[in-house]
This record gives sequence, structure tokens and C-alpha cells, in this order.
Amino acid sequence: MAGLLRSYVSGAWHTPTGDGAPTHDAVTGEEVARLSTAGLDMAAALEHGRRVGGPALRELTFHQRAALVKTLASHLREHLDELYALSARTGATKGDSKFDVDGGIGTLFGYSSKGRREMPNDTVYVEGAVEPLGRGGTFVGQHVLTPLHGVAVQINAFNFPVWGPLEKFAPAFIAGVPTLIKPASQTAYLTHRLVELIIESGILPEGSVQLICGSAGDLLDHLTPQDLVSFTGSASTALRLRTHQAVARNSVRFNAEADSLNLSILGPDAKPGSTEFGLFVKQLVTEMTVKAGQKCTAIRRAFVPAELMDDVAAAAAERLAKITVGNPADDSVRMGALASLEQREEVRRSLKSLLDAGTAVFGDPDTVEVIDADPERGAFVSPVLVRVDDTGRAEPHQVEAFGPVSTLMPYTSADQVIELAARGEGSLAGSIVTGDTEFARQVVLGVAPWHGRLLVLDADNAAESTGHGSPLPALVHGGPGRAGGGEELGGIRGVLHHMQRTAVQASPKVLGAVTNRWVTGGPRAEGEHPFRKSLAELRIGDSVTAGPREVTLADIDHFAEFTGDTFYAHTDEEAAKANELFGGIVAHGYLVVSFAAGLFVSPEPGPVLANYGLENLRFLTPVKPGDQLTVTLTCKQITPRENADYGEVRWDADVTNAQDESVAKYDVLTLVAKELSAR
Amino acid sequence: MAGLLRSYVSGAWHTPTGDGAPTHDAVTGEEVARLSTAGLDMAAALEHGRRVGGPALRELTFHQRAALVKTLASHLREHLDELYALSARTGATKGDSKFDVDGGIGTLFGYSSKGRREMPNDTVYVEGAVEPLGRGGTFVGQHVLTPLHGVAVQINAFNFPVWGPLEKFAPAFIAGVPTLIKPASQTAYLTHRLVELIIESGILPEGSVQLICGSAGDLLDHLTPQDLVSFTGSASTALRLRTHQAVARNSVRFNAEADSLNLSILGPDAKPGSTEFGLFVKQLVTEMTVKAGQKCTAIRRAFVPAELMDDVAAAAAERLAKITVGNPADDSVRMGALASLEQREEVRRSLKSLLDAGTAVFGDPDTVEVIDADPERGAFVSPVLVRVDDTGRAEPHQVEAFGPVSTLMPYTSADQVIELAARGEGSLAGSIVTGDTEFARQVVLGVAPWHGRLLVLDADNAAESTGHGSPLPALVHGGPGRAGGGEELGGIRGVLHHMQRTAVQASPKVLGAVTNRWVTGGPRAEGEHPFRKSLAELRIGDSVTAGPREVTLADIDHFAEFTGDTFYAHTDEEAAKANELFGGIVAHGYLVVSFAAGLFVSPEPGPVLANYGLENLRFLTPVKPGDQLTVTLTCKQITPRENADYGEVRWDADVTNAQDESVAKYDVLTLVAKELSAR
Repeated sequence: MAGLLRSYVSGAWHTPTGDGAPTHDAVTGEEVARLSTAGLDMAAALEHGRRVGGPALRELTFHQRAALVKTLASHLREHLDELYALSARTGATKGDSKFDVDGGIGTLFGYSSKGRREMPNDTVYVEGAVEPLGRGGTFVGQHVLTPLHGVAVQINAFNFPVWGPLEKFAPAFIAGVPTLIKPASQTAYLTHRLVELIIESGILPEGSVQLICGSAGDLLDHLTPQDLVSFTGSASTALRLRTHQAVARNSVRFNAEADSLNLSILGPDAKPGSTEFGLFVKQLVTEMTVKAGQKCTAIRRAFVPAELMDDVAAAAAERLAKITVGNPADDSVRMGALASLEQREEVRRSLKSLLDAGTAVFGDPDTVEVIDADPERGAFVSPVLVRVDDTGRAEPHQVEAFGPVSTLMPYTSADQVIELAARGEGSLAGSIVTGDTEFARQVVLGVAPWHGRLLVLDADNAAESTGHGSPLPALVHGGPGRAGGGEELGGIRGVLHHMQRTAVQASPKVLGAVTNRWVTGGPRAEGEHPFRKSLAELRIGDSVTAGPREVTLADIDHFAEFTGDTFYAHTDEEAAKANELFGGIVAHGYLVVSFAAGLFVSPEPGPVLANYGLENLRFLTPVKPGDQLTVTLTCKQITPRENADYGEVRWDADVTNAQDESVAKYDVLTLVAKELSAR
Repeated sequence: MAGLLRSYVSGAWHTPTGDGAPTHDAVTGEEVARLSTAGLDMAAALEHGRRVGGPALRELTFHQRAALVKTLASHLREHLDELYALSARTGATKGDSKFDVDGGIGTLFGYSSKGRREMPNDTVYVEGAVEPLGRGGTFVGQHVLTPLHGVAVQINAFNFPVWGPLEKFAPAFIAGVPTLIKPASQTAYLTHRLVELIIESGILPEGSVQLICGSAGDLLDHLTPQDLVSFTGSASTALRLRTHQAVARNSVRFNAEADSLNLSILGPDAKPGSTEFGLFVKQLVTEMTVKAGQKCTAIRRAFVPAELMDDVAAAAAERLAKITVGNPADDSVRMGALASLEQREEVRRSLKSLLDAGTAVFGDPDTVEVIDADPERGAFVSPVLVRVDDTGRAEPHQVEAFGPVSTLMPYTSADQVIELAARGEGSLAGSIVTGDTEFARQVVLGVAPWHGRLLVLDADNAAESTGHGSPLPALVHGGPGRAGGGEELGGIRGVLHHMQRTAVQASPKVLGAVTNRWVTGGPRAEGEHPFRKSLAELRIGDSVTAGPREVTLADIDHFAEFTGDTFYAHTDEEAAKANELFGGIVAHGYLVVSFAAGLFVSPEPGPVLANYGLENLRFLTPVKPGDQLTVTLTCKQITPRENADYGEVRWDADVTNAQDESVAKYDVLTLVAKELSAR
């Protein structure tokens, strides 16, 4: 670990030339490592990703990539202890380390699961419905997404050296886009070890992950229109990167996630002693002190009903008094150090500005009692809760002290707190702590345009809530304006961010060939009953037509009696006539689909294992007594499972009457064996 | 029309101070109007949109906004002739004018229809599924979209003075965001008349549309994080706007749509005499000459199999020879003028560069025979088809002559033409003309990362195809890299671009209140059967629980016989046992949902008019003979129709067994009357 950190680029570990710049242990001030990118060929690294990593990834399906992400997550979970040990040197307590390390690994698991459940086992992602583009049905359109042929460059912040790289990596990898990681210097040694573990494991295709420890040098100059940049950090750096000539000229997809003045609002219903009052105070203190407040999602502005200011201040101060500060290796310590002495200076500067506008309810920027560490060599600072009664002051809405600092402010109405929220000019996250559903609705919708994520915390969900500050893989992370205007995570949205959306216009036959799905109007092949075919034999477009079967009035009567569905439209000719949608007795929709199943079934045991569902069923034309039903079933989409001997098959079902009008259309979902002999 | 064009800002028409700069008739060179924004208060205009237009729009639901868009479209359709007359002065033929004017109005109709069919009749848009965030079901998440509180500033290109403003306006308006239009100077007089018609109609709320004729002045300096900029035009202007300090610092959503070197590829199957050969040549000539080639989607690079170069060149030249050029008022004229003399100079400059790399197969940049006009005062130019055999030359992939100009180039394999495609560095649109499905699939997926839209033209869809150059409201318009990296249109995607996506985390009760949808685990109210309630009485969460009903082996036997669905899992105990998913005879899924309907039905005539469909049906637990079924039906979403006396109601159906396991879950879709007395 001592000495210069190596970078992993162009398929090998490179030790930089020169001495490099030192990075220090946040607790002891000792030098941990030195960083330099002198001698690295940035252009070659990007080209390696494009020429080696990209093609290797694009050979795999979404499910295969997702499976590798899961394997990687399991591998990293076996190395928690060494990651925790390095994490402690960044000033993190064990809890903080779990937040970063376990949070990052959990994001890999989350994406792996989403990728397999919500994407096709294919290399093309199909989005949205087939759009009819002409009346005759010969010209249709649909959107497909394909991986960009560039590199996803991540420029990370110092505060999440494990979660940061992993949360950006997972969606890029599943999309089929290689990643180049540039960690922040202060904590790069932890990301370095993470990437060593990834590379040493040999789980991922070469070129899919690269690492640059040190300055980015001329990296951005070599970006092309197919590359992406995802940045987490300060607004000033975001501005510089966003307006970089190569980024702007090439329309490089640029995603920024910047610190913001996130709020938490206590509802007017939450009087002292109420569950929600307690939840608000507890969460506020947690958000101030986890990671020593170095979370871009931490609560910076705490709004409480004016009449509760004193109560909240007192309750928060009481809790804050129990927060012990010091060496995270000591079990009695509740809050560790900031990441660096420079960071502490920055926090003290910002606090000066905040204290110009208010007073400290708890803590002193310059004094802190420290356990088991040297308060001068380690980057320790006390939690400080500021109180500002004049909400018209600019500072609490604009100055972010990136440490264990928050500002308490009063409000007098829902409308006023919505206005105050907007003064933050865009945030990553906000929370409303209330048991009043109407207040929650009003404030959520009122502040939503300024937020990427909003938590409503109450007695109902407190036990399960993941809290104000935790981005989750399934939910969007990022916010407008000051927060950078970006979006990360958000489930499959984060994957699609790394892909190009293309509208394809074609005949049904060609569109079907592009999307690997049968499209209405596309070619059908009838022959052996498709339910007799295993996944190995089945092809998109394989089809069976069955019928006709007459629906008699006796059938309808009987079905009503047998099922109990005696709705008047099926049983009372006069009443049914009065309903202009029917104009007389009609068959039950459930009868129609049941008869259709009776027509298309292939009874003997075979590769079709089960019908597990139905989608998008629409009853399009009423079925009258005497109507003749015919059903056409066509294989629409095939999704083999990677780790099972079967897969999902989606069938298009079209039930028509003797006039060839569709009376019902729907998708039938089945499980089908991969091989005839498999079961 | 003569004299200074007025601007419509802050609720009134303003005549600028000063003389302004002239804009000229493209055909005659006469002065048409003068433009200036001297004396306009740009900051006030933006603030008017935010303070007056935005709040008025946000009072309306998506359906109400969509209805206004339709009313506006119908109104504009009554003024086609005067718009055509002004359009002719831009150099446009009647056909060109229809492309612009009718195309713009058609986009309004298209968006109105999409808005009503694909969005809720509400002010909040809910996206994606409810995400479970804890095992207990008390903590869930979902994404909602709310309108940004700013102004959608559009900066338009000269070539589509009607379609351009309308295609940007429609999605912004339906989103609930006011628009400020800045047309390009050359053809601003036509946009000016369009906006006069809009304002005079009184159809739209005040503040929802403003117009600035002339220079943008300091407009962009006043942008905030809630504003948006949508730009169409040159890459150099896009770069300047994108890196503008107020845009970059505030993370203003910036969408650029820039000209690009769009391609068309002739398939290797399309020999001379084939349908596809004819389609390719015809489309190439059309794209070169419609709007005198001033379309950002026009074909600039035409790739043909090397051995067909001579044939395609000859066939295209033959068609081009029939293109008469001149005053669009003359019925014999097939192609009008460029928008200005400056534009002609620009085209000639670019052509010089292209002709350095190749030869002219047809046309001369400096000579053209002109009908009924002065060739010196009008901006006329001949169509020019360039042939470049050395595809390694940079010019044809990088130089865009924004006029009736295209370059013919050879290719020798699918892989090679995919590589050549990428040399354009990003395009709005491309087309592949082929009857070979496999070639189409390979090339579409190969070039997709560089394209926003791809058309596969063949004999099947030729009659209905809208052609290479036509953006459609339902499909994305925009492309990566050189094309600006933006996305417009694309159906509801274009609406959502104007809204903030926010992840909301809450208890089911609160999430349901925010989204206006019942969420699993949320409160239910049982009382009067909800099928007896009209839309006026029905509330989210209204519920009925019915059952239990036993499913007997006799029921299963009977259902198999009655419907014909004799699948072995329902009829053959031994075979069913061998299927590990069942382990014995199970009831038909269709029987389960039929019995459920028999349980929850309310037979007598009432407000529920019909069950028109079913969605997301999943069979979760096998139902065995002897199982007792109970169904709980809960009102999930209510969508009143604006122009009918009924609306759609979505019900959550949950069928459980005696062990309280869900055996089937699905949504039931019904039509319900607004009032009990209504029908």
C-alpha cells in the first residue's frame, strides 16, 4: 500500500513516473499513499475500453452481464474486512464503512436482480409499444436501445470511495459499456484496492473496468460522441467539466451529481412527544453525523413549525451531546474524522458564514473533545447545529458546510415552507416527517420540482425506512439545478442512460427481426403445434390457429350460473339492450378467453410447463350468442433463463369472430422447457 | 406585415424601438419585414411566463391541456391559406409549405391524442411500478413527474418556421410548462403570424406562449434551474448556447438538434429494376429537393453497393433532370429557393469542399435555370449530386451543404458500411432500402448507436412510409454527437422532458395520496359495493371482499370439459404430479378468475358499464381441489374522460386461498358512469 498507487489501464497495471502527491490518513495524519498519473496514456486507455472492453461486453446479453455483476458482488463480499480497514483510514466508523462498502455491494446485487427481471435476455432493449404509423399496418415504429460504443468515465467524490464507483459501474456494465474510474485523491487508496480485487478476480471481461489514480490530465480531451462522463463532486468542478470543449462539442452525455442544501420538514401535527417528532430529531442527528456529515444527501436545512423551534433545538442538542468523536477504531466512538484537514478548514469557513446569519444551538466549530486520537493531526470537528430564525437570510439556503452541520429554521405554513424549499435551487433529497397525509401530499407535490428524491417518514414506515440520506438502486439519485441536473440509478433508467435510443420505422417483418419480437402483421409459421416445441426449437412467429367454436346462449347462461357472474349484460336481454355498449346479451369476457384456451391448448405433457399469467387483455368487440370464435396464437418473445432449464415465452393471442373482427387481444405468458428431454 | 415585427411578451404586443434589421423574400429579394428586440425586457418576459403562464397551466390536468392543444390545432387549420402565402415568401413550394404548416398542425393533433390516451387525467404523472423497499410492505417507492416551474425557451431554425415552434410547444404545453419562442430572423415573419393567430384565438391561458422577434439579447442570462432551452440549428451555435454560463451553472435542461450528415443505404439485394432500387433513387431525389434540401434530416450521404454506383448515379441524374427550379408560385416549379442569398453562398462554399473530394454527377453549383424569377435576386441553386469513390476522404462525412446536395459513395460489405456510417459522428436520421431482412437487422443494429431514427424502406411499407426525412410525433427526433445529443418528440417522452422526475418514498397510504392511486398495503374502505358508486361517489381505496368459494375437483373437471381446456395439469393427476410446478391437479387460471368475477360481481344495472380488459395477471400459487377462494377488489385509479359521461376505473384484484396466500393478482379495467342518473 505504501508508495505510489498504480493505475490499471490498457490491460495492465502501470506504476507512474515521478514522486506523486501524498494523501493522508484522516485520523492520524500519516501518509497513506502517493498519487500520480505521470506517464499514463489517457487516449490509449479510452481506446482500449472502446476497442477491447466494449466489443467483449456487447457479445453478452443483458442477463449474462447481470449474472457477472452478481458474481462480482459475491466475490467482493468475501473481502469486507480489508475494505473496512482501509475505510477506517478515511475517518470512517464501522457504520460509515458499511454504508459505503456494503451499500456499494448491495447496489451490485440490486442491479443484477433488476437486469434479469426487467430486461430481455438479449443484446437489444425494446422500449414502449409498437407505434402504428399508417392505417394499413404495413408501416410501424418502435424504440430500441443499443449500447454506446464509448467509455463511461466516472469522476468520483472522496466521500464514497467504494459505493461511488460501484453505483456508476453497475448500470454501465449491464448496458454493455466499459468503465474508467477516476477516484478523488483523498481516498483513492480504498478505490484502488477495490479495483485490484475486481481485476484480480478475473470475473469481468478485460477492458470493462480501468482505473486512473491521480490527476485526470488530458483525459477529457480525448472524449468522443460515444463516451459518457458521470461526475460527483462540487458545483464548480461540474461547471468546468460540463463546459469542457471536448464534452460540449461532442455532445458527450454528462451527468453531474453535486452537493445540495437538502431539507427535512417536520409536519405541524408532530408535537413534542409524538412518534414523528422523535423520528425527525433522531434522523436529523443521524444525517449530521453519519460519515461525519460528508454525504451529498445529508440534511442541511431543517424546517420546523415556528412554535416548535425551541423544542426541536433542545431535543436535537440533547442527542448531539451523546455523539462521541474520535478514532473510529475505538468502539465508543460514534463519529469519526472528516476526510482531510483541508476539508475541515472548508467546513469551518462555511460555518462562519452560517453563524453570521444565526447562532449555534449545539457545537463549536473550533473545539471538539476527541477520543483516542490527536485532535490536531486528525481532521476532527464537532457536530454543529445552527439556528437561523430569519429565513430571509441567504446563507442557510446557499452555503453548504460539507460536514456534521445543519441549520434549523422556522416556517408558518405549508405554502411558506414550499417557497423556502425552492430557495435551495435544487436538491438531491428531501424528507417530510409527518403523520398528516394531506400535509405530506401538499408538500411533496409542492417541492417535487426541486427534488430528485423525497422521503415521507412516519410511524407506519419508520421501522423499514432506509432514511433520508440513502440512495437506493431502484430509485433515481440526482436532482435539478444546484444538485447538478443529473440522474443516476433509478433502476433500469440508469442502464438506459448508457445506451442510444433509436426510433426504428419498418414493416412488421423487419421490425420484428430487429427487436426479436413478433409484431402484428409480421410473418407467421404454422406447422407442428408450437406448444410441442422446446425453446431450442421454437421460433418467433411460430403460430397455431384454432376454431371456430360457436358461443351459444346456453353457454352464456351456463357460464353465468357456474361461475356466479350473473352481471345483467350476460343474463337480462332487456337490460343488456339498454346498455349502448352491448345492445343485447353478450358473452362474458372470461368465457371468451376460457374458450380460446380450450381451442389453443395442447393437452399432453410437453415442453410447455405452465401458463403463469396474462397481459394487456382488451375486449374489443362484444361477443353475441351465435358468434363463432377463432383464436390465433403466435410466439412473440422468447426469454431463456440463464440458470434454469426453462424460460419465458410470450404469445400473442388474437380471438376473432366470423367477421374477422378481433373480439379480444392479449399476451399469454408461459414457462417452456429449453429441451424436450429436460423434464 | 411591412415594417417592424412586434414581439408578444409579458401579456402584450410590443413594437421595438429602433429601425431593426431587414429580412428578405427568398424569391424576389424584396424586404418582407424588419426585426429588432431593442427595448424588450427579457427578464420580465421570462418572469411573466413563470408567474402567470406556469401557474395557469398547472391548474389544468394533462387531459385538459391536451384538449386545448386540439382546439388550437383545429383553429390553425382554418388559416392554412394565409400561412401558405407567407411560407411561399421563404422560397417554399406548396408541397414544402404543407410539410411545414400541416406537419406542425399534425404534431399538435398527435400530441393531443397521445396526451389523452397515455397520460392520466391528473396533474401528476406516475412512472413505473411501485418499488418495494422493505420486506414488510410498509415502505415503498415510486417515481412521479411534476412540471418544471420555469419557461421552455425555444430557439428555432429558419427552415421550419411553423413546424419548429409547434413541435416544441406541444409537449411543453401538455407538461404544463409555458413557452417562449425565438424564431430565426430569415423566416420570422411566418412564425410571427402563427403566434398572432394563437394569441388572437384566446384559446390558451395567458403567459403560456410568448414570442421574441429578433436577437435574443440577454435572454439567456436570466435563466434559472427550472427553465429549459430547446435549440435547433448549427453545431457552432449549439456549442455557444450549451456552454453559456447561466445555462451551464444552473444545470438548465438544454436540448440541441443540429444538422447532421444523415445517410441512406441501398441494400446489396436491390439490383436495378427492383422495387427497392427504384424506392432508393426516388427517395434520394425527394430528400435532396423538398424544402430545397434545407432539412436537418435530409440525406447527405448515399451509400450504394460498389457495383451499383454507375446505375444509381444514372438513375438519380435522370430524375434530378426533371426537377424544375424557380418561383414556387408557378405550378410547374418543383423546387423553390433557399431561404436567403447568404444561405446560397454557404451552400456553394460547402459544395466546393465536397467537389474537391469527388465529381458532380448532376448539377452545377453556380448555374441554374430558373422559372418565373430573377436568378440573381432570388436564392436559387441547382440540385447537385456529388460522387465520391474514395470513402476515406473526410469531406463527405464532415461537410454539410445545407441545400439540395447529396454525396453518392460506394461500399463493399455490411461491416464496411457500418464503419462508414460512424464516420458521420452522429445523425438525426438514416434509412436502409432493402428487401433483405437479415441485412436490415445487421445494419440497423450496427448503426443504431449513431442514430436517433432509422427507416427501413421496402416494398412492403413503401405505400405507407412517411419517408426518410419526416420526424413523427410518436418517434424520437434528435441524434447523438454531431446531431446535438438531444431528443425531441418521441410521444410522451417529449412531455416528460419538461418535468422533474422525483422518487417518492413513503408508506403505502401516503404514496397513494401523492399519486392518486391505491397502493398495495394502503387503506381500504368497505361499505356499499363499489360497483354501485358513480365516479362522483367512488374514491380510491373503495373496496369489496367476497367469498370464500370452494373449488372442487368436479369444478375443475367440468371446466375442462366445458371449455375444452384439457391440459394435463387439470385432468391427469399422475402427469400433473410429475410437473414440479404443480405436484398434482390444479385449477385452470381461467377458472380462478372466472370464479373471482362471480364473487365480486354486482349483477343489477348500475354505474359500472363494462369490463373492457385485464392487466398484469399473474398466477402466483397453484389452486388445488378443495381450496377456498376469496377475492378483494379495490379501486386503484379513476380517470374521468373530459368529453364523455363516463370514465375508466382500474381495480386491484387479489384472489387468496384459505392460507391467505395470493393465488392470482391482476388489474380489472372498467368503464363507469360519472353520475348515477347519467345513463
